[in-house]
Amino acid sequence: MESHNQHTYGLVGGGKGAFIGDVHLKAASFDGRARLAAGCFSRDYGNTLESGAALGLARERLYKSFEEMAAQEAKRPEGIDFAIIVTPNAAHFPAAKALLQSGIHVVCDKPLTLTVEEAEELERLAREKDLLFCVTYLNYGYPLIKHARELVRGGEIGEIRMVMGEYAQGWLADLVEKTGLKVAWRTDPAQAGVSCSVADNGSHLENLVSYVTGLQIEELCAKLDIFGEGRKLDTNGSILLKYKGGAAGMYWSSQIAIGHDNDLRLRVFGTKGAIDWHQEEPNHLRLTMLNGPTQLLSKGSGYLSPAGLKYNRTPPGHPDGTYEAFANVYAAFMNALSRKKRGEKVGLAELEYPDVADGVQGMRFIHKCVESSRVGRWIRM
Amino acid sequence: MESHNQHTYGLVGGGKGAFIGDVHLKAASFDGRARLAAGCFSRDYGNTLESGAALGLARERLYKSFEEMAAQEAKRPEGIDFAIIVTPNAAHFPAAKALLQSGIHVVCDKPLTLTVEEAEELERLAREKDLLFCVTYLNYGYPLIKHARELVRGGEIGEIRMVMGEYAQGWLADLVEKTGLKVAWRTDPAQAGVSCSVADNGSHLENLVSYVTGLQIEELCAKLDIFGEGRKLDTNGSILLKYKGGAAGMYWSSQIAIGHDNDLRLRVFGTKGAIDWHQEEPNHLRLTMLNGPTQLLSKGSGYLSPAGLKYNRTPPGHPDGTYEAFANVYAAFMNALSRKKRGEKVGLAELEYPDVADGVQGMRFIHKCVESSRVGRWIRM
Amino acid sequence: MESHNQHTYGLVGGGKGAFIGDVHLKAASFDGRARLAAGCFSRDYGNTLESGAALGLARERLYKSFEEMAAQEAKRPEGIDFAIIVTPNAAHFPAAKALLQSGIHVVCDKPLTLTVEEAEELERLAREKDLLFCVTYLNYGYPLIKHARELVRGGEIGEIRMVMGEYAQGWLADLVEKTGLKVAWRTDPAQAGVSCSVADNGSHLENLVSYVTGLQIEELCAKLDIFGEGRKLDTNGSILLKYKGGAAGMYWSSQIAIGHDNDLRLRVFGTKGAIDWHQEEPNHLRLTMLNGPTQLLSKGSGYLSPAGLKYNRTPPGHPDGTYEAFANVYAAFMNALSRKKRGEKVGLAELEYPDVADGVQGMRFIHKCVESSRVGRWIRM
Amino acid sequence: MESHNQHTYGLVGGGKGAFIGDVHLKAASFDGRARLAAGCFSRDYGNTLESGAALGLARERLYKSFEEMAAQEAKRPEGIDFAIIVTPNAAHFPAAKALLQSGIHVVCDKPLTLTVEEAEELERLAREKDLLFCVTYLNYGYPLIKHARELVRGGEIGEIRMVMGEYAQGWLADLVEKTGLKVAWRTDPAQAGVSCSVADNGSHLENLVSYVTGLQIEELCAKLDIFGEGRKLDTNGSILLKYKGGAAGMYWSSQIAIGHDNDLRLRVFGTKGAIDWHQEEPNHLRLTMLNGPTQLLSKGSGYLSPAGLKYNRTPPGHPDGTYEAFANVYAAFMNALSRKKRGEKVGLAELEYPDVADGVQGMRFIHKCVESSRVGRWIRM
Repeated sequence: MESHNQHTYGLVGGGKGAFIGDVHLKAASFDGRARLAAGCFSRDYGNTLESGAALGLARERLYKSFEEMAAQEAKRPEGIDFAIIVTPNAAHFPAAKALLQSGIHVVCDKPLTLTVEEAEELERLAREKDLLFCVTYLNYGYPLIKHARELVRGGEIGEIRMVMGEYAQGWLADLVEKTGLKVAWRTDPAQAGVSCSVADNGSHLENLVSYVTGLQIEELCAKLDIFGEGRKLDTNGSILLKYKGGAAGMYWSSQIAIGHDNDLRLRVFGTKGAIDWHQEEPNHLRLTMLNGPTQLLSKGSGYLSPAGLKYNRTPPGHPDGTYEAFANVYAAFMNALSRKKRGEKVGLAELEYPDVADGVQGMRFIHKCVESSRVGRWIRM
Repeated sequence: MESHNQHTYGLVGGGKGAFIGDVHLKAASFDGRARLAAGCFSRDYGNTLESGAALGLARERLYKSFEEMAAQEAKRPEGIDFAIIVTPNAAHFPAAKALLQSGIHVVCDKPLTLTVEEAEELERLAREKDLLFCVTYLNYGYPLIKHARELVRGGEIGEIRMVMGEYAQGWLADLVEKTGLKVAWRTDPAQAGVSCSVADNGSHLENLVSYVTGLQIEELCAKLDIFGEGRKLDTNGSILLKYKGGAAGMYWSSQIAIGHDNDLRLRVFGTKGAIDWHQEEPNHLRLTMLNGPTQLLSKGSGYLSPAGLKYNRTPPGHPDGTYEAFANVYAAFMNALSRKKRGEKVGLAELEYPDVADGVQGMRFIHKCVESSRVGRWIRM
Repeated sequence: MESHNQHTYGLVGGGKGAFIGDVHLKAASFDGRARLAAGCFSRDYGNTLESGAALGLARERLYKSFEEMAAQEAKRPEGIDFAIIVTPNAAHFPAAKALLQSGIHVVCDKPLTLTVEEAEELERLAREKDLLFCVTYLNYGYPLIKHARELVRGGEIGEIRMVMGEYAQGWLADLVEKTGLKVAWRTDPAQAGVSCSVADNGSHLENLVSYVTGLQIEELCAKLDIFGEGRKLDTNGSILLKYKGGAAGMYWSSQIAIGHDNDLRLRVFGTKGAIDWHQEEPNHLRLTMLNGPTQLLSKGSGYLSPAGLKYNRTPPGHPDGTYEAFANVYAAFMNALSRKKRGEKVGLAELEYPDVADGVQGMRFIHKCVESSRVGRWIRM
Repeated sequence: MESHNQHTYGLVGGGKGAFIGDVHLKAASFDGRARLAAGCFSRDYGNTLESGAALGLARERLYKSFEEMAAQEAKRPEGIDFAIIVTPNAAHFPAAKALLQSGIHVVCDKPLTLTVEEAEELERLAREKDLLFCVTYLNYGYPLIKHARELVRGGEIGEIRMVMGEYAQGWLADLVEKTGLKVAWRTDPAQAGVSCSVADNGSHLENLVSYVTGLQIEELCAKLDIFGEGRKLDTNGSILLKYKGGAAGMYWSSQIAIGHDNDLRLRVFGTKGAIDWHQEEPNHLRLTMLNGPTQLLSKGSGYLSPAGLKYNRTPPGHPDGTYEAFANVYAAFMNALSRKKRGEKVGLAELEYPDVADGVQGMRFIHKCVESSRVGRWIRM
């Protein structure tokens, strides 16, 4: 086994009871190419010690702060290759900065930071240090999204006219903050930043559209609504878009949409065809060509493009889901990491995972939505 | 058989090859309560004669113009009770006006007219003459829409927060005007007015939302796109809405959405529950209550409200569709007509079919969308 | 209007409150080619008089018995062209026989009779008298079934290997007989014959498979279950089949399947492709070719075969249902009737509606299922 | 970290290119509770060495045969806790026997063996040696199956009347054996045993029905078809069942069903309700109570039973699939293993994974189906 293909990593955040931390942990280890070796799971050192013990980590690699983790791991001869940041949004920036400054590659949850400036600083730092920086927009990891991208960017559905993106959840329809639900930090400006529904759901849409279509937003008009008594951040966002080149778009990000669990749907309409994909049933992609019947493309099928099959894991009909999508993002990241460790040059255009630049673009989008909603009109991106 | 329950009618438009004319004809006769007795099917008298003969009408009741039909039928002792107008939009106003002035009740396809002023004039005239005036927004006729209305207006799903309406078709993705397709008059300003996609699809959304929820639009921001080379009217419309009371809305009306045949979907999200309905599968309504599973309500089921069963025709699982929805609109109209003929007073609040006031509201909506898109900003309704 | 194209008919059964009688009435009149002119709606003459009055019939054409109707109408110069029989099963045979003997064409609900011998006698009589005899298996009327037939019989999906037919309803899960539900006669041997679920649901499957595939049953093994305390007829049937030529089949007919309203589904698997159709969503047909994606064929689309478009009424996305399917069966019947009245010869192979021979085949199937279940083994057809 | 909770295992089979071997490997390691430590991946030692190196195993724990692995690992102080067998069927028995005889716990793919006798011998051996023996029927691992089991066994849907099980795939519609597809060993009697479709797909149905309902088969009547030129084993199976207590059943297992990827569906109909579950969309369960609407239960929702939530991993709307189901089977197995290692007694009734007894029952079912089809009649189980 070549060591360039095996990696160790540290985790920032993701202590006991954290939903998404555990998903990252399993996804990073999914293919047996990475091993958790260090951690700062919580601001509460006791929690970190407990979580670390449960995960079988050596006590000396359990850290009181991410700064300490960054500094110490950078010094160890066998220090971690990369770190995964899965804290609430507010800690992303300082943690990522400390890690980059210590020369450690970074994987960070989205949205990347609280402000655009922070995100830009991280991008600059990553480029200066020549470090890899993955922002975990998980939809990159779905094989059928890679196939959809191939279709759309390859011109199969013609010139794009309209994009319809929606990401509807209902988990904030009620005041779950009062129940002590851990993930309710998303409605707290101090931890989440300027937005809740756009920062969480809307930024997924922005990223996915960008990834699949390559379209660039020219102007947008957003209306953000704060539903839920006493809340300070939007839990429902309605956004109109104009893309460069003339395509139109609508995004709907909602967390108060009772009846929707985690329902991201992307439809792209071109002059020659259209695609339709749902995150809740990610193993089928609907493709309709002009004047033809709708086709249900099934993950793993022989008729898919090489890009659509590259990250496929099981035969058609064997459902893959959230873990596998994350694992595919990590697989793409580790492919780049292995090349890096072998001394190869890895160009930005070759990346098959979402890069820090995607994170920056996401932050711009979030802030523009907030601004547009505040001033009540169309604004330029 | 009491004659008050049997009606005769005339048809304006709907000559040979007209799709929607034939649907109206069958829907009006569906329950055996109305009989076609007169017609002016086309501007071309030869076509009218031919169509009339095929329909078994007496030659003296086939007219060269709707003015003539209105005048002559008003004079006959056994003249028509009402007339149905199924021409392209431009002829709605003059035809309806002539009929009303002759004292004939009117059923008219939507959108009602070309301008708001025309619509308002028709409303005034109908009220002055005390005549019934139905504008055939067919979704009124679906039993599950009546049940949804009951749920929403009855407070079952709480206070409304968000409305998501979409009506996507793909029939104008290609330049079908060049194929001689008859219904392509919709892209011609002279016949269709100021809008294509909003006038046709969008106005259905506006009406359906209004009917089901009672919400009133306070402000809207629309972006209308003209897709299809050489076209002059929008074929794709994206609209943000603020309703009185604070609810938010998004409407998408499209005729270039490849992969969608005739896909109207309405979702209404409240504080306590949500509904979801598709016109293409009109016999199920999805209802989700806060923290509960989604329920698939099936047309004709015993657990539905009396309102949801009143216009039901067959047991659950026997699919009803476009014809039956139209037939139900006609049934509601004839219920009122029978009462009228018996000398009863029929209050506006009692109507179970879409009234001329709905048509007026539709025209205001269409024109506001066009205006908002032109000026590029939110405008008040 | 040529009189050969306009027909009058009488109705046997279908008095007030009868669900399927009303469907027949509307379906027969749907296209304006037939007019109800006579009736014997009930064994109760008072009910017949009341129903007839409500339908606007002349009193002298309301009859005390079907024998009287047959005799009198045959004598009238302008007597009915055909009669529709929509009584419970037991009356089908005597009514049809009386009508045929009087020289009147017949449309009869399925299952055709109580015994195979009765069915065969009707077939003989119809052939001797050269009269048309339609048995209303409504699925013949769905345009996509006609398209499926074209695909399957045209060899598009290769040699057939397997047929999976299910027709599941839940309306007899409970003892609805005790509630006075009118259609509960189906569980009464005196009115329904030897079977309930196979006679009603199973015979639809047999007919539909035969129509779409042309396969002939060689052997079958049935297990009929009587669920529901105190019942005497099967409410659930499970059937294995061997067709001539080597294809296999399974049919499931159930009336105790909670969660299914009226769920007929037909799947046919060939060596090169497969089709899948649901009666509850009749406007789409799934077609999958070997190694290709599943295609959702949509009713009325230009890519369908001429056979699949011939009886289509509205553009794609405008849902048609039970009434339209019945109306199409009647349209096919009247096409033949018009030709007959013009003196043309109408060959059995040309019929586009289900003939008395289909009814006979249905009776054989029902009786073989009952026999196989009784003896507990495979039997030859 | 308590060592009782951490396990090591060896793998028999699953060399390079094996689909299901890799799934087992990742599923066993999913929760970080087990580590692959030894392997005999192939009959070809070179392949084993190569696979072992890629997986980072020590060379001395790569074995030429499973006998050697069993013997050597049993001797090592830190030898493997359990072994996973993922070979073609024929090797299951000798491998499992060797491992049990060496005192090693076993996880084995299904179907368990080639003959009933072999399966019974393994069960005896496991009980004698007091060793855990899991047979990986993966559907045990779906949280909604555990919820369904709770509903059905708890009497929620009343007394069971009918079970409809189908498991349809299309991968053998074509002669894929000729393409060198590795998994095509399933059509080879020497490797697969007496059946292909029933042994693979049908036995999943038998097990799942048994698990969810507790029903015991009294009699069955099967018809197995060999579709595909030159094949010797069934690729399509149609089975009627009588369960003790009077419920009826139908199972359909097919590998020639074009249009179905991996489509297992289970429906259970009781006197008070019914459930409906699909493996391809495992995160929803349909539940309908008598006279109520169908409810879509969503994985991870708060309204589910504790049993339905116990093995849940992510919030509603985050799709889980094949890997997670397998991982849950392994988690249940390891729960028992940890208890065993702590010296606790683990009763058969407490097992939350499929036991060797399930494997034995599966073999009986397969052989009875083959026999029934051969003799062409119902036989007792």
